[in-house]
Parts: sequence; structure tokens; C-alpha cells
Amino acid sequence: MDRSFSHLDAAGKLRMVDVSAKRPTRRQALARCRVVTGVDLETLGPRSDGIDAPLGARVTGVLAAKRVDELIPLCHSLNLDDVDVELHAHADGIDVTASVTATQRTGVEMEALTACAFAALSLLDALLDADPDAWIDDLVLLKKEGGKSGQWGRLVEST
Amino acid sequence: MDRSFSHLDAAGKLRMVDVSAKRPTRRQALARCRVVTGVDLETLGPRSDGIDAPLGARVTGVLAAKRVDELIPLCHSLNLDDVDVELHAHADGIDVTASVTATQRTGVEMEALTACAFAALSLLDALLDADPDAWIDDLVLLKKEGGKSGQWGRLVEST
Amino acid sequence: MDRSFSHLDAAGKLRMVDVSAKRPTRRQALARCRVVTGVDLETLGPRSDGIDAPLGARVTGVLAAKRVDELIPLCHSLNLDDVDVELHAHADGIDVTASVTATQRTGVEMEALTACAFAALSLLDALLDADPDAWIDDLVLLKKEGGKSGQWGRLVEST
Amino acid sequence: MDRSFSHLDAAGKLRMVDVSAKRPTRRQALARCRVVTGVDLETLGPRSDGIDAPLGARVTGVLAAKRVDELIPLCHSLNLDDVDVELHAHADGIDVTASVTATQRTGVEMEALTACAFAALSLLDALLDADPDAWIDDLVLLKKEGGKSGQWGRLVEST
Amino acid sequence: MDRSFSHLDAAGKLRMVDVSAKRPTRRQALARCRVVTGVDLETLGPRSDGIDAPLGARVTGVLAAKRVDELIPLCHSLNLDDVDVELHAHADGIDVTASVTATQRTGVEMEALTACAFAALSLLDALLDADPDAWIDDLVLLKKEGGKSGQWGRLVEST
Amino acid sequence: MDRSFSHLDAAGKLRMVDVSAKRPTRRQALARCRVVTGVDLETLGPRSDGIDAPLGARVTGVLAAKRVDELIPLCHSLNLDDVDVELHAHADGIDVTASVTATQRTGVEMEALTACAFAALSLLDALLDADPDAWIDDLVLLKKEGGKSGQWGRLVEST
Repeated sequence: MDRSFSHLDAAGKLRMVDVSAKRPTRRQALARCRVVTGVDLETLGPRSDGIDAPLGARVTGVLAAKRVDELIPLCHSLNLDDVDVELHAHADGIDVTASVTATQRTGVEMEALTACAFAALSLLDALLDADPDAWIDDLVLLKKEGGKSGQWGRLVEST
Repeated sequence: MDRSFSHLDAAGKLRMVDVSAKRPTRRQALARCRVVTGVDLETLGPRSDGIDAPLGARVTGVLAAKRVDELIPLCHSLNLDDVDVELHAHADGIDVTASVTATQRTGVEMEALTACAFAALSLLDALLDADPDAWIDDLVLLKKEGGKSGQWGRLVEST
Repeated sequence: MDRSFSHLDAAGKLRMVDVSAKRPTRRQALARCRVVTGVDLETLGPRSDGIDAPLGARVTGVLAAKRVDELIPLCHSLNLDDVDVELHAHADGIDVTASVTATQRTGVEMEALTACAFAALSLLDALLDADPDAWIDDLVLLKKEGGKSGQWGRLVEST
Repeated sequence: MDRSFSHLDAAGKLRMVDVSAKRPTRRQALARCRVVTGVDLETLGPRSDGIDAPLGARVTGVLAAKRVDELIPLCHSLNLDDVDVELHAHADGIDVTASVTATQRTGVEMEALTACAFAALSLLDALLDADPDAWIDDLVLLKKEGGKSGQWGRLVEST
Repeated sequence: MDRSFSHLDAAGKLRMVDVSAKRPTRRQALARCRVVTGVDLETLGPRSDGIDAPLGARVTGVLAAKRVDELIPLCHSLNLDDVDVELHAHADGIDVTASVTATQRTGVEMEALTACAFAALSLLDALLDADPDAWIDDLVLLKKEGGKSGQWGRLVEST
Repeated sequence: MDRSFSHLDAAGKLRMVDVSAKRPTRRQALARCRVVTGVDLETLGPRSDGIDAPLGARVTGVLAAKRVDELIPLCHSLNLDDVDVELHAHADGIDVTASVTATQRTGVEMEALTACAFAALSLLDALLDADPDAWIDDLVLLKKEGGKSGQWGRLVEST
């Protein structure tokens, strides 16, 4: 197999990728997952009485995206220009999408995936008492732009 | 619907659950997810030449479990007695399971789910260059024990 | 003056207070501050269209209370049983109150004060573009309970 | 009212400000607050015997300024060029000023305010045992420079 | 060799030690290292003019001790009862000792060693411009008490 | 003595160095320490059965390098381009070297030293049960490049 692993050096050791020879360019990534639950989502807000698990989830996703370097060992510290987490309720649950933009020497795919995962975990935290069967499905990278590899989009979605 | 939301008070406001009236008891939770990829997993280690994305993933999961309170706003700070993250490769990818034990006033479900999610994200970080289509599937709570609600197990698995 | 400084030892050196000889007991503290602004607070939410700086502020206060030990050098790490941050709008601004409960060997005054300060800072972050003159006023401890010193309440408020 | 809220998008949703289209420029901000106390400040140091709550407070303020992005959800991660926290004792207490400089795509107002707040909270932590009535007063932004909005200074101080 | 490795399970895998079957007892540990430098230490403070690298170092050591669980993957989160970092200047440099106490299910050796290391690193940070040859020598555990293994003391010191 | 202390201003106060007038340039630093132990190092891995304390140590060193600004009060937040931690076993123990590269306004010496210290502490964590006499020796800066002071190398090593 000739696929390349960015975190393996010539000797096959796991290591950080040296990005010092790259110039900062604009990078974007879009990720998505789904929280599957039988709970009536109208009960989760936002509503005028302050019920707002979705807003808490969006805040959680943004905070997590900014701390990827602390949590995933070989990720670089990146100053993100923008993080946007959106939630859309539908019949079977809640779709979470996260879009991240940065002007950096490496991509922001892990930041977008982490923002999605943590927004969804925050929703699970609100849901598990009422529905312990709730779960997170199909956490995928949908799109990335910028850098040497240019634009990439998921052709056939996993769902 | 009369399901209860632990993070909503009588007035419907999102808030932390006050656990001061509870006694610390032994709590356990088991969670699982799957990393789906077409990459030949033999290439990921552990091998004598130091390739070991799986060990990096296990370390990442353990570290994340200890920091759930910093990342998910309404979760309590818990001193965990044990966190164990396991990875099992099969034909379609890697199964990640995380087991968490603590002697606390509240459960450790979110810690087990977060350990799974971060171990899987760390694997994606190693895989995305070779396989940007790799994704995380079926992040579920399998079992919890201890506390007022006693033992719970997922009857029909989501996969 | 014979008032005692808990963080100074017999030799006058700044140091952490050794709490190993104390038993964990229930501690509570209540703090309050005010965000003063000329902005029309109706514009800050919560509203059905998702404007909700106050909810963001409450989340921020809760998260900060859980991390006091990382930020204030001589504070102990405490597992908090409950943190509740409330906001009340009035003619001149927004009152922020924070109530913290824990079963620990030392008090939670700094946790309540920090929760207030950070909820208020988060509101300033939302307000400063529209009103750079907005400020935080009268951050005070209102009440503490538990521990050797028993119950204490502020007799004459500072405002 | 036509004042703008930087954290609300066109649809009125709370979100991070996308700064990717901006160029990094030099930004500065100056903030101030006051710790009000009846304690004789000579007892707090710095003194040759090692009593030095003020130095601890300055260190605390600098550390907090570097972590604003972790604590206030919609703030960007910024690499700060300089943080300077000063304390000046006077008859009624201690004035805390914090000056922050950075070469970034967004301003450092929140960093200066947070440095002030945490230096003051650290002083309260040293003072509360001796003087539980001690409080933090008038946390204000005094000045900001750089960026699209140019220079701004507080005309009439709040005290 | 029949020495036991606490972080290896029966199958030889690196993992956290499950402490859920242990009762919390009082634990103590004492560690020490030396910062070796040719710099005249009188210039480092504490002095009335505010030069106080040693106090900054003590604060740094205390803060690091409280975050060992975030930095060393298999260490448990422990609420420490006391951390005391002392510095003593002598002809060849500065001795740093750190004493940690906790009432926990596992020992605090790593916390004492980490407090020493970080206090010393903070001193190096102050010294390196003037003396890039400055270094940290002999970071050792001197003593531990409590738990199943009881009291242990270093018989022959390494220096 | 006319050596300069970068963290002391004209008035002798401890403070952060203002780097806003500097341009970002490529910086590198190399540090090293030694873990001294009587344990048979073959038992520590990497091996096919998953024993891999060295890999855990390398991950720990990389994570710590990225968080120097949170732990050492006057260090700047730096986005590192590369961190590489290597371990080499020999008769008396394990040599740990850390190399750090960044394109920043200030040097990365503290990042390299901290990576070494934490990788070594992580090894001690694995070793102390079997060998409580194990210790960390000779943590030194070996080399730095870039910035105003240009290239520097340790002439006579401390060991």
C-alpha cells in the first residue's frame, strides 16, 4: 500500500508533522455528525423560558475546537479565525455541523471534527437521563479547502 | 412526554445538577464506537519499529476522560479511579471501547463516551491523510452501574 | 493588626493552606456583581431566534468555577457539587449572582466570586462593541456557610 | 437601537466573529479595577521575608490573560506579545491595571479585562480570611488601540 | 526480574491503575532537585524592589502539582491538601524541594516531582538569558509515606 | 555583574518580555536529560504485546511542550511547528532529547526543556513502583538557533 501517513516519519515512528517550511494559508474544514434520539426535541429549546441545550452544545463545540492541541497529541496549536457550530433537528434526532476557518501552516480537519463531537456529546449529556439509548452517528469530514492538497469533498456520504 | 431532563430545573432552565445530598458510591460506565476505514490496519502498529497509533489513541482517550468537566459545561469534576480504553481491529475498521470507574456522587457515562470519542478522533488524526473518508460510527453507551438508577444495559445495539 | 492571613505561614511566607487535618463538610458561598451598561437588554436574549448572551454567560461562569485551582495559585482543587449562575436585568444593567456548593475540606468563596466575574466578563465580551463603556461593578461575597468559621453574611452591602 | 453586536450574525444567532479576512495588526488594551479593603496593605508585601501577595497577583493576571480563549467561549486564541499587570496601593485599597499588546486579527480588550479580574481575585484570595468584606470595584476598559475602530479612550471614568 | 510495574496489566499492556478498591488515606511525598548556575543569586530576589524570581518559581511549582493528571497520561486526578515548594540558595545554585500531602487512594510522588521540576524550569526561564549553561540536576524522590507500601526514604542520595 | 535578565525591567520588576517589535523568525532549540534507573529497560517496550512506556513518554513530552505558556508564568504562547522527543536506552538509563521548531517572535528553549522534563517524568511514573530510586539527571539546553542572539551551543556538557 502506498498511501502516506502524515504522522509517521521515514523510520516509521509516530511523530508530529514539521510544518516550519510551509507558509500560512487560508484553510477550511466542514464536519458533521448526528445525535439519534427518541426524545421530543421541542423540549430542548431554545425557548423563552431558558431551556436551551442546543445553545450550550454550540458553545461546547466552539470551546473544544480551540483546544484540540491539548487533547490530541500530535495536532498543532492553531489560532482559529472562525468556528461555527450549527444544529438542525429532524425526525430522528439532531444534525450537528461544524465549520472551521484558519490562516495557518496546516489544516483544520481535526478542529471541525472535534467541534462536532463535543457539541454532540454535550447534547447527549442533556439527553441521557431521559433517553440512555441516544447515540452519536456518522461523524464525518465533509469538505476541506486550502493547503497543498487543495479542495476535497466527500463523494458518497456514509449515511 | 414525562421523561425527565436532569439538567433542567423546575422552571425549565438549563443548570448543573446539585449532587450535594448524595453519598459517593461506586459508578461504572462502558461506551463504544467504531472507526470505519479502508486502510490496512497492520500499518498502524504496535510494531517493533515504533509505529503505534493505537497506543497514542488509548493515551488520548484516558487524558480526555479526566478533563470532561472542563469541556462539557454542566458535568461535575470527578476523580476517576480507573479509565481503560481498548482497541480491536476487524475487517471494516477499529472498535474502541472505554470503561470508566469512580467513587463519586454522580455517574461517569460522559467520561466513558468522551474517552471513546477522543481515542477515535486520535485515530482519525493518524488516518485522514491516507483515508479522508474514514469516519466514526455508532458512539453509544453500552452499560452503566451504580447510583440511584442502578444498573442499565443497552438492550438492542444500534449497529 | 491581628487579623490572620490564611496564605501566610508563621515565617510570613506566602503558601497554600494545609487542609489535610480537616474533615470534608458541606460548604456554600454566594457572590454577586453587576454589569453596568446603557445597552437595551432586550436585545441580548434569550429569544426564539437564538440570541442568548445570558445563557452563554451562565455557562462561562460554571466552567470558570470548576477551574479556579488552575488559575489562582494557592486555591485547592475542589470537586463542586453544584454551581448556579443567575442573571437579572434591571434598569442600569445586569445583576449576576453565583451560588456554589461543595463537600470539601475548604470553602468555596473563590469559586463563587470567580463564577460571577467570568459570567460578567462573558457579558462584557458580548457588549463591548456596542458599548465600550460597559463595566463590572461591586463584585462581592454575600454569604458563606460551613467550616470552622461557620456562617457569615455581608451586613452592609457595598452598593 | 442601531448599535452593533459583534457576536450576533445577521439571523441574530450568537457566534464567533470570523476574522479570516483581516490582517494581523498591532493591538493594545488597558484595563483597570480596584480591590477595596480595610486591611493594612503593608502586611501584604513585597517584603524581604517573602510576603508577596501582590507578586502572586501579577503572575495570576498574566496567566489568565493567556487563557481567555479557554474561558470565554467566543474569544479567539491570540498569541500575546506582552502582558503587564501593575498594582498600586492607596488609602482605600489596591488599584490593578493590566496592559496587553498583540499582533493579531482582533483586539485584546477581553485579555486586559481578564488579567485585571484575576489579579484582583488573587488578592481577594489572600485577603478574605482577614477581611471577608473586601470587594472588587469598577472593572473598566480604559483604552484600546489598533484595528478598524482605531483608538478609543474612556472619557468619563466610572469612579 | 520480578519487580512490578504498576502501569502494566497482566497482559503487559500500559494502563492506568484501578484504585477503586482502595480507601482514601493520608499520603505524603517529598522531592528535590537543584538548579546549577553561575549567576549571582542575590540578583534574583526577593527584594524590596520587586525582583522575585524565587516566588514566581514557587507559584509555578504549586500550579503544576495541581495539574499532573492533565500532563502525565496515567496519573489520577487528586485533590491535594497541601503543596509546599521551598528554594534554598547555596554556592553552586538553588535547591528546590517540594512537599505534597493528600488524602487519596493513590500516592503523590509524581505531584512532588512535578512541582520540583516546574519550579526549577521557571527559575531556568529567568536565568537562561544571563546564563544559558544553567541546568537542572538530580531530580529525585526523597521520601514517601502512606498507602500499602508504607514509608520509604532514599537511603543513599544520588548527589 | 552585567549579565542581563530578560524578565526584569529597568526598575527591576519581574515581567513578561514585550516582543511586539520583533518579527517572527525560525527558532529552534534542543534539550536533553537522562533518566537513571537500575530497571532492565527491555521490559519497558516498545514490544508487540503493547508494553510501551517510551511511546507514552514521547506523547507526554509533545503535549507538555504545547502548554508551556499555561505553566510557566512569563512564557509567551507560541504555535510550535514541530516537536520531536527521542529516547535512547543505554547501560545506566534512558537519554531523552527534545527538539522544538517554531516561527515566532521569541525562542523555544523553555519548550524543549519542558518536553524533556515531562517525557522523563512520564518514564519515572512508569518506573517508580519497581525502582523508587530512579531519578532525572542533567536536564540541559544543548543548542538554540534563530533570533537576535543567533546560534548558541553548549561547549562543555555538564555530565
